[in-house]
Amino acid sequence: MSNYRLVIQYDGGRYRGWQRQEEEQDTIQRRIEKVIRRQYGMDIRIQGAGRTDAGVHARGQVANFHMAGEVPVEEIRDKLNEYLPEDIRIMAVERAGDRFHSRLNATGKIYEYSLQKAGTWDVFGRRYSWQMNRELDVDRMREAIPFLLGKRDFRGFCARASKKKSTVRDLRRIDIREDEGKIVICFEGNGFLYHMVRILTGTLVEIGTGERAPESIQEILMTGERRLAGVTAPAAGLCLVEVQYD
Amino acid sequence: MSNYRLVIQYDGGRYRGWQRQEEEQDTIQRRIEKVIRRQYGMDIRIQGAGRTDAGVHARGQVANFHMAGEVPVEEIRDKLNEYLPEDIRIMAVERAGDRFHSRLNATGKIYEYSLQKAGTWDVFGRRYSWQMNRELDVDRMREAIPFLLGKRDFRGFCARASKKKSTVRDLRRIDIREDEGKIVICFEGNGFLYHMVRILTGTLVEIGTGERAPESIQEILMTGERRLAGVTAPAAGLCLVEVQYD
Repeated sequence: MSNYRLVIQYDGGRYRGWQRQEEEQDTIQRRIEKVIRRQYGMDIRIQGAGRTDAGVHARGQVANFHMAGEVPVEEIRDKLNEYLPEDIRIMAVERAGDRFHSRLNATGKIYEYSLQKAGTWDVFGRRYSWQMNRELDVDRMREAIPFLLGKRDFRGFCARASKKKSTVRDLRRIDIREDEGKIVICFEGNGFLYHMVRILTGTLVEIGTGERAPESIQEILMTGERRLAGVTAPAAGLCLVEVQYD
Repeated sequence: MSNYRLVIQYDGGRYRGWQRQEEEQDTIQRRIEKVIRRQYGMDIRIQGAGRTDAGVHARGQVANFHMAGEVPVEEIRDKLNEYLPEDIRIMAVERAGDRFHSRLNATGKIYEYSLQKAGTWDVFGRRYSWQMNRELDVDRMREAIPFLLGKRDFRGFCARASKKKSTVRDLRRIDIREDEGKIVICFEGNGFLYHMVRILTGTLVEIGTGERAPESIQEILMTGERRLAGVTAPAAGLCLVEVQYD
């Protein structure tokens, strides 16, 4: 058995996310497994590092799968790209150690959220950003960052938080950069809860418009109350940029 | 009567071009006229500077139209953007001199053609570039540029050349830049014939793959024979970037 590691780019716009409970739904994982099975005739299951939601994109999703024999990595990459739809591309295939598991071995992830400034438009990026209709004060948004960084309980920034599983995550970095008409918020952490990046973004946007104070972050963290945080930003603006390993 | 000048961005992917002879077809011009007429209740006709083909995009198309009375330019822009589909955006509306005509007064145009290098992929740009499956020698492509620049008869680079109208154009600049996985060819000239940029691109690509020599340009120009030039590059990779005025 060989273990293969895939780096995957996708436009999540028309998919029900990376993985879903119900087997019949059109997910990215399912599309890739279908091609692997057809090409290599086996009941192969792939493991993805990040379970991106419906409509969320990826530039650097990582997945792995085990397969008997040794197939050249370029052959796997080219075969997959030949048969996958054009909104899913395999950027690289590499041999990985037998025990490598894309999700369990991940030590960090980087997500980016793109906002399109009010009064500016980008038809070519319209499916990959959230169009603002109010001006954002980026400096004010940056003031909120120190309240969020570090190892904290992010229960208030999580949809459907489990009572049994830990909601503590280490948020290592938040950068906000402006790029022509766009504001891109970059989040780096050891892991993210369900909808966490989108709720963090929605909350930062409300700080940017002046609807809430940067300090309001503290109450959300202290109480763990989802209703105190901001709206959930739309899926289309979110992209899994990188999965980190030691 | 006031004369208004529009700067327009569009994803041409699902349209039958800027303008078509048959009135029933879904064109960008028709979409914009429909909204203007519904908003301002008049039989207004807009004039576009460049008649982009079906599937071709624009970042800086220019058009103008005359309308009775004086409407604030921001109001026109916002109304149009409110009712236009999201793949057509009005970037700016300005008052123009009475005699301004977007096409007849244009002194130059800039088009860009995007190629995605073989072995690289960009799912987010897939609708806006031509995916290569062979490597291109960019230096070899650049060797062809001097043969093309200047005032020349481009009949051989034109689909359905008219026998009556001049096929002489002044090609002022061709730049080829590499940008991550992309090769972008920029064409600047006083005007372009039907399919000219796409045939020039197809010919440059064949030079890049080694299928033809840079010097082969000379024979195409000398004979004016379309069949001696390269393939017509797909519409999706082409974008009208700028229309120039004195």
